Amino acid sequence: MAEGVPQPVLIVGTGLLGTSLGLALRRHGVEVLLTDRDDEHLRTASSLGAGRPHAGEPPGLVVVAVPPDHVGPEVARALVETDAVVTDVGSVKTAPLRALEGVRGIERYVGSHPMAGSERSGPLAASPTLFDGRPWAVVPHETSDPAATEAVTALARLAGASIVRLSPEEHDLAVARTSHLPHLLAVLVAGRLADAPAEHLALSGQGVRDVTRVAGGDPGLWEQIVSGNAPAVAGLLTQVRDQMDVLIAAVTSGDRGPLGEILEQGVAGTLAIPGKHGGPSRPTASVFVSLPDHPGELARLFADAGASEVNI
Amino acid sequence: MAEGVPQPVLIVGTGLLGTSLGLALRRHGVEVLLTDRDDEHLRTASSLGAGRPHAGEPPGLVVVAVPPDHVGPEVARALVETDAVVTDVGSVKTAPLRALEGVRGIERYVGSHPMAGSERSGPLAASPTLFDGRPWAVVPHETSDPAATEAVTALARLAGASIVRLSPEEHDLAVARTSHLPHLLAVLVAGRLADAPAEHLALSGQGVRDVTRVAGGDPGLWEQIVSGNAPAVAGLLTQVRDQMDVLIAAVTSGDRGPLGEILEQGVAGTLAIPGKHGGPSRPTASVFVSLPDHPGELARLFADAGASEVNI
Repeated sequence: MAEGVPQPVLIVGTGLLGTSLGLALRRHGVEVLLTDRDDEHLRTASSLGAGRPHAGEPPGLVVVAVPPDHVGPEVARALVETDAVVTDVGSVKTAPLRALEGVRGIERYVGSHPMAGSERSGPLAASPTLFDGRPWAVVPHETSDPAATEAVTALARLAGASIVRLSPEEHDLAVARTSHLPHLLAVLVAGRLADAPAEHLALSGQGVRDVTRVAGGDPGLWEQIVSGNAPAVAGLLTQVRDQMDVLIAAVTSGDRGPLGEILEQGVAGTLAIPGKHGGPSRPTASVFVSLPDHPGELARLFADAGASEVNI
Repeated sequence: MAEGVPQPVLIVGTGLLGTSLGLALRRHGVEVLLTDRDDEHLRTASSLGAGRPHAGEPPGLVVVAVPPDHVGPEVARALVETDAVVTDVGSVKTAPLRALEGVRGIERYVGSHPMAGSERSGPLAASPTLFDGRPWAVVPHETSDPAATEAVTALARLAGASIVRLSPEEHDLAVARTSHLPHLLAVLVAGRLADAPAEHLALSGQGVRDVTRVAGGDPGLWEQIVSGNAPAVAGLLTQVRDQMDVLIAAVTSGDRGPLGEILEQGVAGTLAIPGKHGGPSRPTASVFVSLPDHPGELARLFADAGASEVNI
């Protein structure tokens, strides 16, 4: 099962992603070494079964799973200090790559980015199934060694993910659109709630909860992510700002034409999002079931769905 | 149980809300009469058990449940043609009220707005439990008869909802913030996906799905809702546009100070949203459970939660 993954795998950073990856790899018997600046995180990850603390063994593959600001330096260090294939799981790809120019062994580096996460962080939030069926971007740069790309692809596949191969530039444009822009707009909507009167907020329904959920994510982490992908994010924000000017003009003047066009384009966008497990959109059926808000109702429904071999 | 609700109740419009209300009232034995311009909707609602077709009987309470553009004229007609208390379930309150100036019996009118709905519409989407535990705004105007306000309050309570009493102006500001702004920003995010390359969209995770879900709602209906609440919506959109300019400047210049402030304000906003059933925020606990993506897992979890008397 672990074919193609150079061992041992050294995971640098035992937060949510690093620990989850360790747990996923250990399921397949891969030898996993762990390191972290934070001893407590390291002990926790290790005691959860994500791997054993690194004691200097030379790794076959290094996975850098540290906050975005530290990805470049940690990848550089791994390239210089080992002869291993090196990857990272950071949310942006071009900025860290620029920081690696001229570093020895850069051909052994292939960036990657699993599209999995949580509003929580830290090793206690980890799960061996975090990557199951999720898209995982494998992002070789122009001078990446094809063997290194194959090793990182094998790693992502072993973790249970679906591979999407992209260049660093394409990757950063893609996540600006599918992750960073939605996050920032959710933040702006949520920001308008922060100082609203309580009796106004009493009218909050499911819609505003869904739209703003991601805005609860760690601001320190998102500051790094957005800053690391500044050009792509700024470009999209500017497009949305221009659309917003059209929208404000339409709403103010009562001109329903442009308002209707923008609303229609939104519907088209929701239909463009591919199926649950990434990759091409798969045929699904929507089944609407109304449930009374009583204990046990969801359990009954989902048990029946499971018995009928329906994937929810 | 049906105390305080003047009978029979005539429901004008047998879409999602009208039919759901009929079903909810029939549970309590209330006499419900139905009418709709669309005979097929009327037959469907009636055959579902939401009430019987109106044959001219004088109603005690009229509920206007038609699309936003038609609320004003239909309320006026009900006031003039009957001596009943009249309410509506539309999403905006000040614009229809302006259309009623000088209409006979306006003191019998009290607006209302249940915070319940669906991406779907029509009587087949209806459910008697649609309003269970949901906020329901009861919105008397300056000359509303207190007895009429009591009748509409009794109706909303009988439907299972939690009452939030607001003036028409407060109501429209509240829904601009908690419903119309989130909807429009979700639409703008979704709009950026409509023409994106498929390999970019392959990186879509749960976040973008949540943020954009509401953008799939009926554009024709939302055009009417947004237009009906234009001043409040335009005001909030302008605030967000100004924040967006700050954001674009911060991202472009790499100035993390203002970026961090905006992100922190977003977190504060998510915390300001009250508990599931409206009203004041109630203490809840978040329990994180990781599930493999296999059939039956959610059912097992929810069955265990139900057995433990946990409200999900």
